[in-house]
Order: sequence, then C-alpha cells, then structure tokens
Amino acid sequence: MKEDQNVARRPVKVAILGFGTVGTSVARILCEHPPDGVTLGCLFNRGIDRKRVSWIPSSVLWTENFDQVLDSQPDIIIELAGGLHPAGDWVRRSLAAGRSVVTANKKMIAEQGPALEELARRHGCQLLYGAAVAGGVPVIPAVQQGLAGDRINRLHGILNGTCNFILSNMEDGAEFDATLRQAQQRGYAEADPTEDVDGFDARAKLVILSRIGLRVEVLPEEVACRTIRDVSAIDFAYAKELNCTIRQISRAELRNQELLATVGPMLVRRNSPLSWSRGTENMVISGGQYGGETVFSGHGAGGNPTAVAVISDVLAIAHGGCPVTITSTRARVDGDFIVPHYIRFVVDDQPGIVAKIAGDLAAQHININAILQKPGYPKDRLPFVVTVEPCRSSALKAALGKIARMDCMQASPVDLQMLEEQLT
Amino acid sequence: MKEDQNVARRPVKVAILGFGTVGTSVARILCEHPPDGVTLGCLFNRGIDRKRVSWIPSSVLWTENFDQVLDSQPDIIIELAGGLHPAGDWVRRSLAAGRSVVTANKKMIAEQGPALEELARRHGCQLLYGAAVAGGVPVIPAVQQGLAGDRINRLHGILNGTCNFILSNMEDGAEFDATLRQAQQRGYAEADPTEDVDGFDARAKLVILSRIGLRVEVLPEEVACRTIRDVSAIDFAYAKELNCTIRQISRAELRNQELLATVGPMLVRRNSPLSWSRGTENMVISGGQYGGETVFSGHGAGGNPTAVAVISDVLAIAHGGCPVTITSTRARVDGDFIVPHYIRFVVDDQPGIVAKIAGDLAAQHININAILQKPGYPKDRLPFVVTVEPCRSSALKAALGKIARMDCMQASPVDLQMLEEQLT
Repeated sequence: MKEDQNVARRPVKVAILGFGTVGTSVARILCEHPPDGVTLGCLFNRGIDRKRVSWIPSSVLWTENFDQVLDSQPDIIIELAGGLHPAGDWVRRSLAAGRSVVTANKKMIAEQGPALEELARRHGCQLLYGAAVAGGVPVIPAVQQGLAGDRINRLHGILNGTCNFILSNMEDGAEFDATLRQAQQRGYAEADPTEDVDGFDARAKLVILSRIGLRVEVLPEEVACRTIRDVSAIDFAYAKELNCTIRQISRAELRNQELLATVGPMLVRRNSPLSWSRGTENMVISGGQYGGETVFSGHGAGGNPTAVAVISDVLAIAHGGCPVTITSTRARVDGDFIVPHYIRFVVDDQPGIVAKIAGDLAAQHININAILQKPGYPKDRLPFVVTVEPCRSSALKAALGKIARMDCMQASPVDLQMLEEQLT
Repeated sequence: MKEDQNVARRPVKVAILGFGTVGTSVARILCEHPPDGVTLGCLFNRGIDRKRVSWIPSSVLWTENFDQVLDSQPDIIIELAGGLHPAGDWVRRSLAAGRSVVTANKKMIAEQGPALEELARRHGCQLLYGAAVAGGVPVIPAVQQGLAGDRINRLHGILNGTCNFILSNMEDGAEFDATLRQAQQRGYAEADPTEDVDGFDARAKLVILSRIGLRVEVLPEEVACRTIRDVSAIDFAYAKELNCTIRQISRAELRNQELLATVGPMLVRRNSPLSWSRGTENMVISGGQYGGETVFSGHGAGGNPTAVAVISDVLAIAHGGCPVTITSTRARVDGDFIVPHYIRFVVDDQPGIVAKIAGDLAAQHININAILQKPGYPKDRLPFVVTVEPCRSSALKAALGKIARMDCMQASPVDLQMLEEQLT
C-alpha cells in the first residue's frame, strides 16, 4: 500500500444537508467504508430528532440550524435538500464562507450554475455537481475531463429514469396511466409526476450537460419540453412497424452560435443503444468533432448510485483535484430541429381524409413518407399514422393546426420527432 | 466569456515524442484549435527531416535528439513512441526532470505504472495515461474520478478494436483468415497481428484498468490470454443457436484478495451490450457495490479519438487538476472463473463418442447442459458442440486433455467460456 501523499494529513470534514434517501446513502457509505482522508462531521435536516439513527457515530453533530453547520467548520458541504429555496441560500452562504460544496441539485445548477461557480472561484473553493446529471453514471467528469480535448457538438440521451421506466414498460402494450401507477407503486415516480413526465427534470439536466459539453449557457425555460402523457400503446404498435420504439429523448446540438435543444418523446430506431435502455436506466451519447460518438449508461437514480457520484466529487476535492475549467458563452436556444416526424391521427373514417391531410402538409412543403393503418379498430375512431420526411417542427405545427380542425378528427393529432442517429 | 482564472498566465508548453498517426492528430488539433493556455513547443521523432509538414508553426522546434527536448523546457511531454525501450527511458528522464508526462503507452503503464507514478510524485509532476485504455472512450477519468466513491469489484469489456472488427465481421459467416486480411487491408490490423489477436494488447489494458478500478497491481504476464485464432465460422453458427455471439472479452473480478482475470474469445448473449458492439468499437462495463453496472463505449482507437484522450490529459494538468490518488495493493492472479463453457469437437463419427466425452466430463464433476449438432457436415469431419454447466476452466482442461486423445478427434476441441452477465 502506497502512502497517499496528496491527501492532507488532517481529514477533510464533510457536512450533509438533507438526510433523505441520497443523504442516508452518502452517510452510510462514509460510515461503512470511510474513504481515505474523509470524515463525516455534521448532519443537517429539518426536524432532525425524528431522523436520528443508531449507526451514525456519536462524534457526528446533528442539527436543524444551518448556522451550526457553518460553525462546525466543515471543509465540504454536501447539499442534498434540493430545490432553489432555501437550498440555494445555504449553498451561497457556504461558498461565501470558503466552504466547497458538492450537490445533486440539478434545478439550482441548471438555473444558477455559472453564477455559483463564479462565487466559488471568488472565495477560493469549489462547487461540484456530478450527481446532478444521470446519478451514478459519471457523465459530468467524463465529459468535463475525459473529453475536454474534443470539440463536442451534440449530446442526446435518456436523462429521466421515470420516463424511461414508463415508456420501456409501455412497449408491451400497457397504457400510460396504468404504467405511471405501477411506477408510483415501485417508488420510481412521485405522487405528482409533472417534473418527470412533462420533461422539466430532464430539461434541467440537459441545460447542465450543454454547459459542460457544448460550453453554452442557456436557461431551462428556454428549452422546449413535450410531455410523454400523449403517448399511447397504439403508438408503440405503430413504432414497432417502423422498426422503432419510443423514448423520452433530451437532445442538444450546436448550430453556429445557437443551441438547438428539445426534450420529449421521440421515435428511436431499434438498432440504437437508446432502444436497448430499459427500466430506470440513463444513457448519454456525446458526439465530438474528433472523438466521434461516446456512450455512457447506467443507473441514473436511486440512493446508492447517486451517493457514488456525490462521494466521488468529495474525493476529487479532498485529493486536491480541480476540474478543467469550462468557459461558456450565453447562447440563443431554438427547438426547431429538421427531422422526420411521426403523426398519429384518430378519425371518424370518411373519403378524402388523406387527400386533405396531404394537401395541408404540402402547403408547408412537407413530404409524406409513409401511411400506416393497422386493422382491427372501429371505423368511427380509426387510428392511423403518417410519417413525413425531415421538416421543421414549426412547419409541421402550422400544418397540424389546420388539420386538427377537420370535422373527422376524434382527438388532437400526436406528432413525435423521429431521432436520426449516426449509427456505426 | 468568463476569465479562465485557473490557467496559468504563461501558456503550458508541450513537446510530442513520436510524430506518427496519433502524434500527428494531437499536433493538428493543437494547431487547429489551440486550447486555452496550451502551446506546442517541440516535435521529436527519429529521422525528423522526413516528417516535416508545412502546417506546423515555425516557432515549433523539430528534433531527433531527446536532450534537445528536455533543453526546450516543456511543461508536459507527450510520449507517443510506444513500447518499453527507449520510450520508458525518455519517460523516466522527463519525470526525473520534473516534467509531467502524458502517454498512450499501455505496455509501459501496464508493466511499470505504479513505479512511474511514484517517480512522478517524488519529482512533483504528473503522469497521466487516459489514452492507454479504450482510446477516445474516457474510461480512465470516468472510473478514476467519477466512480472513485464506489467500490468497483468487477470490470469486463471489449478492449481491442482489431479483435472486435474480426469477430463482429465473422458473424456473417466469414472465416478468421479472410477477415484478418480484410482488417489488415483497412489498416485495423498489423502485418503481424499477434499483439492484437492473441490478446496481449487487451491484457495490458485490463491490467491498467484493474489497477485504476479494482485497485490491485498485477503484471500482464500473470493474466491468462487465449487467442481468437481458434474461433471458426462454425462457432458463430452454433453460438447463434445458443442465442449468443462471440467477442474477445477482457474480464477482471475481485475474489477476496485475489484477482480473477482472463482475456480471450467468449460467448456473450445477444441481449448483452457487448454483442451490440461492432467494428473497432471498445466497450467497458464496470460493476460497483453501490453504483451497479455502468457502461462506456465508443471509438477505442484511431488517431483523432486517441488524440482527444491525450489532449484531455494535457488540459487536466494545464488546469491544475490532480486526479484522485489510487492506492493499490499487489494481488495474486487466477484465471479460474467458474463459468459455463462451450466446447466444439470435430470427430470422425462413430458410436459411443458422446458417452465417452460425457464420462470424462463427469469424472471432473462437470455436468453437460446441451448437445448441439447442425446438419450438413461430412460424417468423417463432423462438428458438434457440447455446453456444460458452470465449472472451473482448470477442471474442464483436465477433462479435455483426456478427450482430445480419442482416436475419433479430427481437431483439438475448442472450448470457450460463456459470459454470465447481470443484465437489467
């Protein structure tokens, strides 16, 4: 065993803010297998008395008073409370006091990351957030350090385990509502699933990844989100005919000084790694000018995998590490990818429907690629699918605005982008 | 654009030893898109005059004299000459002079990594080698930093692009020799393919990964290698019947204080990410106690992807980074995994063969799982396959030693381990 000369003699003392699932996992790992040179000093939570457990050493300070956390002089403060308030204030006060911060708070980093990093720099400490994207999959250190030498120009992937659980389970024919309930029963979805299924969670992660990988700063609300609630079992049946499946895809791509970015359900080909991703798995695919495509996948959520990312960041600071500095510029965001689309209609069947749809699409210069109609559905609520050649989503939206007003339409048309990948 | 305060005012000066494929890519990226704070100062190669190109700035020193490299006072020396001699001497002299070294030299790092890191530490400089494993796939920084907080206990994957090209192309029915020639024509295999197809290249990478991920030090020659030359088209046909394909798999697993490790062709299931890996792609799957399985894949070789890894290491040093220190211990190596096996025989058919084989296997307490025989082969050179339940490779070897001596055997039996994975 070699002497570990880079670790300071005095152990690095950490405080944990938030003793929930991830906080408990972090504390447990720190107590079960204390990494070289790291010691747990303080646990902070509201109503701390009901949180007490016997396996935490008696030397650890339990408190519900944030001032006491700072007074205990931790070297690193691990923020796992989540949300913007009051977590953001705690983080700012910690950094201003020269305490390094490790956080899993994607919302805070997506909205205030550059400003908080600037604050950390001014006070000679660090802010790391490897756990904020893809949980235990080390995408942030891999991209920030391991691909620093490339010029990454596109990123796409599966950034929300709840949506991936729901959509990969819907492949077998279940409907959205039933699958959501199943996810809730298993603890993979919240009682209010909005953040996950409507794309806000994935969007925050995409904003963080875009800054690290594509080096552009954008705000979460600038990125268009589409909910997965519109996706039905019938869409999986049609997707299968197209040799595809459906996943919630977050994608970002540089086009000149602009960032093209969207989050929402998309058709992905069955020979894409994205279609192999099942359950709560996360996957990120980065595309670089020199290194080509690189795939990262693994457990994107859960107490232990997220705790691994947190403790890895703690170790990076404890061992004197300092990540490659990312210089980023503010960019305009656009969601208008030029891609093929899948459009599912439900109509009261009558002659002339396809002609009218084709006409409205043609008026927007959109070419139909295929028309699919599976047998076995009632004529007065007949689902059928049109796929169109690559077009701007905005042009399609204009056409669908007219088409949706046709008398025969029994439901709003559902349009999904079809992901085009450069597969090896 | 933010001021990059972590980069020293004076640019970091780098020298490149070896102006071959990777060296040229590194130089080209440094000249085309000079990263913040990094400048190319010196190029070193034997017979440097025939290497001169016009796109290198005139400020760069060209030399074939290593003393001149040191005299030019580079901050970082990039070693891309490969091999142990004289590259190892240059690296030792560089480190001893307090110059940090970035290298892609897997052979040198596998054999002397811990000693060289110790030398670097003693002289206050760094030795980074992200390009030594899996080329452009940032496995080393991802494992070393991003998974530092986990306790990784197994690693497996595809670490040699040449073997992966050959085996994934043999899936369609081609034989080894023809596919090797194709790989050679495309520049994916050397004129003498020994290092690649016999497993020595992958073994060096596995040794490096074992140290970084599993924190054990072993020597390359302690890890058993099996060539892929024995694998025939017929094996792919039988593998397909077993819902498998064949890949060169490098695997390492901790068992108490011992490292179980092997490199060689193995059957992998068609639903494993390993079977999706085609062409020269590399893939590494790490398994941790807390974070579970994490998959990394991408371009494992080639000038540009390898250059990305090299420049990323240069940037890590230039930005004042310092990787999480790996403390590792010397471990004993064993190759005796307990796994199911595939055994292919070629016999001059006659009664009693299966009974005799079954008897010899039973004598080693090995249970037969299935017997497969595809039609359409001559009776006097009849291939058939036996799969057996998990057993030690050593026990199987003993049984096959007896079986191989049967008069009916027209070729040595080919036995391949069957990879058992925990698939999500």
